[in-house]
Amino acid sequence: MKLLEERIRKEGKALSESVLKVDSFINHQVDPEFMDLLGKDFAEHFKDYGITKVFTIESSGIAPAMMVAKYLQVPMVILKKQTSKILNGNVYQTRITSFTKGTSYELTLFSDYIQSDDKILLIDDFLANGEAATGASRLIEQSGAELAGIGILIEKSFQNGRKRLEDAGYYVYSQARIRKLGNGVIEFLSDDEPVISE
Amino acid sequence: MKLLEERIRKEGKALSESVLKVDSFINHQVDPEFMDLLGKDFAEHFKDYGITKVFTIESSGIAPAMMVAKYLQVPMVILKKQTSKILNGNVYQTRITSFTKGTSYELTLFSDYIQSDDKILLIDDFLANGEAATGASRLIEQSGAELAGIGILIEKSFQNGRKRLEDAGYYVYSQARIRKLGNGVIEFLSDDEPVISE
Repeated sequence: MKLLEERIRKEGKALSESVLKVDSFINHQVDPEFMDLLGKDFAEHFKDYGITKVFTIESSGIAPAMMVAKYLQVPMVILKKQTSKILNGNVYQTRITSFTKGTSYELTLFSDYIQSDDKILLIDDFLANGEAATGASRLIEQSGAELAGIGILIEKSFQNGRKRLEDAGYYVYSQARIRKLGNGVIEFLSDDEPVISE
Repeated sequence: MKLLEERIRKEGKALSESVLKVDSFINHQVDPEFMDLLGKDFAEHFKDYGITKVFTIESSGIAPAMMVAKYLQVPMVILKKQTSKILNGNVYQTRITSFTKGTSYELTLFSDYIQSDDKILLIDDFLANGEAATGASRLIEQSGAELAGIGILIEKSFQNGRKRLEDAGYYVYSQARIRKLGNGVIEFLSDDEPVISE
C-alpha cells in the first residue's frame, strides 16, 4: 500500500537492522485521518471474507482495528495482555513471549466475546516473528471460531512471521512490507513478492 | 449523556460497590459505531476550546480518543505505561499508583509529541480517584502546554477524582456520572449536580 510506504519513508526511522520507529504517526502519536485511510483499505481488502469481528492485541493495534471495525460494521475485540493466569473460568488464555522485547504475558480473551461461528479478522501494527499473531490464532481456535484473515500495517519481511502464519494456513495481508532495515535504510518489498528465503 | 447512560443500564454490570463492568462495549469488546457517537459528542462539547491534541492513557482510552481526535482533526497521543524509568532524556515521566488495581507504572510521553503552545484534551474511559488523570496533568504541565479539558466516559462520582481535578483548576466533562453502585444497582447523577460531598 503506497500511502503507508510513503509515510514510512518520510517519518519512519530505522534505529537498527531490526527496529523501525514509527511513533510519530502510528504508535505513540497517532494520525487519526491516516488511520482512517488504513482502516478503510483493510475493510476494502477483506470485504468479501464474511468477517464478523475484528480482533486486535492491546495496545498499538487498537487505533487501526477500531477503524477497520467501523468500516466493516462489526464489533472490535481487544485481546488483553495479562501478567498472570485468570483462574475463574470463562476465559481463553495463552502465553506469549516477545523475543523483541524480552517479555512474556498471558494473552487473554473472555469467552463471552467469541462464538464458534465467528469469522475473525486479526489486525496488528507489526508482524515480526509472529509470536503475538500465532498466540491470537490459538485462542481463536480454542473457541472453535475461524481466523479468516490477518491484516498487518508493517511486516518485517526479513523475519519469519509471515512464513509461520502462512505455513499454519492463515492468509496475511500487510500494508507495508519491509525487505531491509539498517543505518538510515528502509527498503520495501512489493505486495506479490514472496517472503525472503530463510 | 443519555445514550451512554442507557447503554450502561442495559449492558453494564455492577460487580461491587466500586466496580462497574462495561467490557461488552467499551473495554474488551468495543462497539465502533457507539464509540463514534461518543467521540462526536466529546468533539462537539470541546469544539470551542482550541484543542490542538487529544491525549489518552493506554489502553482503554484509545478507542474513544481516536474518534474524538478524528472529529477535532488533531493528532492523538497515547501516554504509555512503562514499567521502568527511561533514562535517555527527551521524555516526560511520572509515577502513577492505581489503588483500584494495586499496580504502579511510569506514565511516559516523548517530548517530541508535545509543544509548549499545545492545548490538550485528555480522554479516558473511567474517572475514579483521578490518579491517572492527575499524572497526565503533571506531564502536560512539565512540558509547558495547557491541559484545556478532560473528557471522561464514566465518572464514579462517589469517588474523589472529579473534586481533585476541579480543585487543581481543570475542567471535567463526563458523559455518564455514577452516583451509586451496588448489588445490581447503577444510579446516575445528572450533568449539573455537584459531586457527592465528602
